[in-house]
Amino acid sequence: MHDMIIVGAGPAGLAAAMYATRKRLDYLVLSRDLGGKSNYSIKLPDMEEHQVIRARELVTVYKSRLEYLRHSYRLDGVQSISRNGKTFTITTEKGATEEASTVIVATGARNRRLDVHGEGKYLSRALGYSSISYSHLFTGKRVFLTGDTDRVLNSAVEMSIHSESVTLLLMQGGSYTESLVKYVTGLEHVEVIADGAIKEFRGDDFAEEVVIDTPAGERVIRADGFFVEPEPVPNSSFLEGVVDLGNSGYVPVDAVNMTSVPGLFAAGDVTGNAFEQILVALGEGAKAGLSAYRYLLQNGLRTG
Amino acid sequence: MHDMIIVGAGPAGLAAAMYATRKRLDYLVLSRDLGGKSNYSIKLPDMEEHQVIRARELVTVYKSRLEYLRHSYRLDGVQSISRNGKTFTITTEKGATEEASTVIVATGARNRRLDVHGEGKYLSRALGYSSISYSHLFTGKRVFLTGDTDRVLNSAVEMSIHSESVTLLLMQGGSYTESLVKYVTGLEHVEVIADGAIKEFRGDDFAEEVVIDTPAGERVIRADGFFVEPEPVPNSSFLEGVVDLGNSGYVPVDAVNMTSVPGLFAAGDVTGNAFEQILVALGEGAKAGLSAYRYLLQNGLRTG
Repeated sequence: MHDMIIVGAGPAGLAAAMYATRKRLDYLVLSRDLGGKSNYSIKLPDMEEHQVIRARELVTVYKSRLEYLRHSYRLDGVQSISRNGKTFTITTEKGATEEASTVIVATGARNRRLDVHGEGKYLSRALGYSSISYSHLFTGKRVFLTGDTDRVLNSAVEMSIHSESVTLLLMQGGSYTESLVKYVTGLEHVEVIADGAIKEFRGDDFAEEVVIDTPAGERVIRADGFFVEPEPVPNSSFLEGVVDLGNSGYVPVDAVNMTSVPGLFAAGDVTGNAFEQILVALGEGAKAGLSAYRYLLQNGLRTG
Repeated sequence: MHDMIIVGAGPAGLAAAMYATRKRLDYLVLSRDLGGKSNYSIKLPDMEEHQVIRARELVTVYKSRLEYLRHSYRLDGVQSISRNGKTFTITTEKGATEEASTVIVATGARNRRLDVHGEGKYLSRALGYSSISYSHLFTGKRVFLTGDTDRVLNSAVEMSIHSESVTLLLMQGGSYTESLVKYVTGLEHVEVIADGAIKEFRGDDFAEEVVIDTPAGERVIRADGFFVEPEPVPNSSFLEGVVDLGNSGYVPVDAVNMTSVPGLFAAGDVTGNAFEQILVALGEGAKAGLSAYRYLLQNGLRTG
């Protein structure tokens, strides 16, 4: 029986673990990896380090601290979770069973791949899955975007302010607010392609062009950066039946990262509130850790 | 007319400003200082640096970045704020008037002083106003705490787990949950003094003892650390009439740091949700900045 199980070890899970360590709780981190999505970032040929808000460095420090505390984590995913009174029972993907008084869900949201030629090769090399952190790097540059919801339309609005050109391919089967499509289509320097499918990405060291099949034939679009951003999928399916997830799959939390289930907390991209930002995920993870700690004290559940 | 005015430049306000910079907004930071409470931390004779979660370093980087962007901030407090349609008007303490489409309130909460002899001299030198970040440093040591609400009782519970001894002076006129007082009084290594008033702190380089007037006469208590933690006061009085503050004075926000007033956001200790932690305040500030940015885009208010 642990005081706390933290599921996921991206920035949110790592920050929660740092606070669990500081509070000397008996805790366990279950995660398929350490670092999560923060292990991946897009690089451009001429990007300089100082242009990025350096929260990533903190993640590196927290990762190495957790690696040092070997007993505190296990590289294993979570299969299912159930609740009996004030105890949570977790079954892992490798078949282990673990119990805890509190659980912090920090499993993030996964990007969806297109599975087209060149996508794997250029990932992180001028090709990324989220433009939100990078729009400031594209002043005077050409950007290609594709997605399936208003998210990519909002990216196009942001990119259009300073980029030289924005080409936006609306994915087939997507769902968009019509007025927003109209607005984006009317923006200067923005071309919207409503009828096409990506065939492949091409380039040398970095992605340089994308090939699109359209009814009028093949088109080749050159750009400095390529973003494939269909709506991410929150990694929350193992919570079904435990907490009400609604349609989106995001785990609803309040301002101190509590879910509606006492003892169950969530932080980072799985909440849908973290804006895919490392700094926000770190803050949410720390807050979830401290909320859970307060819950343990208030309920006399702390054993560590 | 600015896109954004950020009131306060502690960790939350600085993080919001970093995002406003990245999003190239026309923004202004109004604050009496840069760094806020993060400029102060308690030192103990034998404390080592690695024992602190290093979010403070990020604050240092953000401070120097903002100092570099001289036009973006002014050392001035906020006197009052009013709202007319989608525009906020702020009057500063130095008499200036500024307008903005969004306002982020990150003014923190101030610690209350006792105004007794030695308090100023030993501040940050084994004497502090919040033990929440430091309990892990007191394993096997003696701690003195005083406060006026359950907050200090919770601190005593936490400190009692690993400290050699905890002496808790309940401030007169305070308000406590009786069962919690009883529980704390029953803890091993904890002495609760219900009837006394602090006369002075004494020591050499660091605070070493506190002198208390009690009905039975003067008592001198030696300790390794002293925490004076009456409930902090949120710096929110300038918001009265603009947003409903309730009794506590904390500014209520949702999970993405929006208040009930469109265009008005809050982050950090002024929300009462940040656990007085730099990392949480940084995350909340970043989130408030990104929420406000989304609001600007969605309402077509961005001018920058």
